Amino acid sequence: MQLKPIGYVRSPIADRKQMPPLGVPAEVEVLPEYAEGLLHIDKHSHLWILTWLHTATREPLQVNPRGAENAVHGVFALRSPTRPNPIGLTAVGVRWREGTRIGVSLLDFVDGTPVIDIKPYLATRDMIYGATSAQIGRPADREAIRASLLMQAEFFGLDIAAPAVEQAAAIVAHFRAEVLGFHDAPGIRVTAPEGRGDLADAFMAMVRVRPGNGSLRFHALPAVWMECAAGRAEYPV
Amino acid sequence: MQLKPIGYVRSPIADRKQMPPLGVPAEVEVLPEYAEGLLHIDKHSHLWILTWLHTATREPLQVNPRGAENAVHGVFALRSPTRPNPIGLTAVGVRWREGTRIGVSLLDFVDGTPVIDIKPYLATRDMIYGATSAQIGRPADREAIRASLLMQAEFFGLDIAAPAVEQAAAIVAHFRAEVLGFHDAPGIRVTAPEGRGDLADAFMAMVRVRPGNGSLRFHALPAVWMECAAGRAEYPV
Repeated sequence: MQLKPIGYVRSPIADRKQMPPLGVPAEVEVLPEYAEGLLHIDKHSHLWILTWLHTATREPLQVNPRGAENAVHGVFALRSPTRPNPIGLTAVGVRWREGTRIGVSLLDFVDGTPVIDIKPYLATRDMIYGATSAQIGRPADREAIRASLLMQAEFFGLDIAAPAVEQAAAIVAHFRAEVLGFHDAPGIRVTAPEGRGDLADAFMAMVRVRPGNGSLRFHALPAVWMECAAGRAEYPV
Repeated sequence: MQLKPIGYVRSPIADRKQMPPLGVPAEVEVLPEYAEGLLHIDKHSHLWILTWLHTATREPLQVNPRGAENAVHGVFALRSPTRPNPIGLTAVGVRWREGTRIGVSLLDFVDGTPVIDIKPYLATRDMIYGATSAQIGRPADREAIRASLLMQAEFFGLDIAAPAVEQAAAIVAHFRAEVLGFHDAPGIRVTAPEGRGDLADAFMAMVRVRPGNGSLRFHALPAVWMECAAGRAEYPV
């Protein structure tokens, strides 16, 4: 069970402490001897980048996650780099490719991190819209929420410059920060204006609501309602 | 870059040739010395299981994928076990846990496969609804399509015993087999009856349509229309 590097991350960020939580645009440079393995990789819009987190420690088995300083968790319940086998796993969008260099969207590995595998992201196998996680850490601030929401919108296939996406991100970030006090709340329900498929898409991307279980509804008003057990708010749109 | 097993797969299937493409219900047994790492893993509905594919070969760098016997691909464009670092990556739903034993939904690793990491599935980072892949291999038959559609519905959070899910799976499987001749077709559009959120959910799960770009529409008829450049079909519902 001996790994060999098949390439390296090329990133403007070399210091882990400087890395934003969601990463930065970066490159994956595959070693020439593995170039053949890239044949037809352009069939895929998104890839998994697997790395060896060479600066991580392999112990302990429990750590305090980011944003939860007094809540120790097992490392298998976290995406922390600290783990017995420090393998990094991040999904990225492919921006461009020039031979063995692949330009990718947000990647959270520092410059020089050894790449150990590249796999295609297969929506039929990897896309779990229904996955839920109880809250682990709190986001740093409303801007951190907004950055995460925009990444989720982009992964959903939306144009993050579209006004509806901006508006939905502002609504969800406000609701989570001001109404929920940065706590997660299961069972959020959204009511959006009829005929506003663009807003419906954005709330599906960011809150994972859906019409079939009543978590996404429509009404004739020019407003978005956000509701859950912990509170409700109304936003004109 | 030396891996150590943190557990093993316990599966009723011991022979890779007998493994169904999507896997079978199985267990992950974590070694006692790593039990501490599982603290709070129950916060997550779904997990990534990373394994060392001990029966795989690390060469060549190009192979013929399943269902595409005359179409060589680079291994980084495939999920084939053949790759320089034979790491397996499969997302599973957690069914139960008893101490260090975790019962999981469909897992495609044979009995005895070394587990090298367990990570939580984070919908905010891992869920790429908009990911697209050009077709690689053809499904074996309509039943293989149906099995994949039902797994996608379950990952979407739907009850796969619900009549709407069964019906949507039958419609999509028929359309792909009979109208598209098992070819993938980008740009499928679905029109579903108004007020049938259950069908809308099912088509979002299985075809990844969405209202904002017009790929999911509604009408007042008791019928589902499936359309793309390659053909169209109408199904009473």
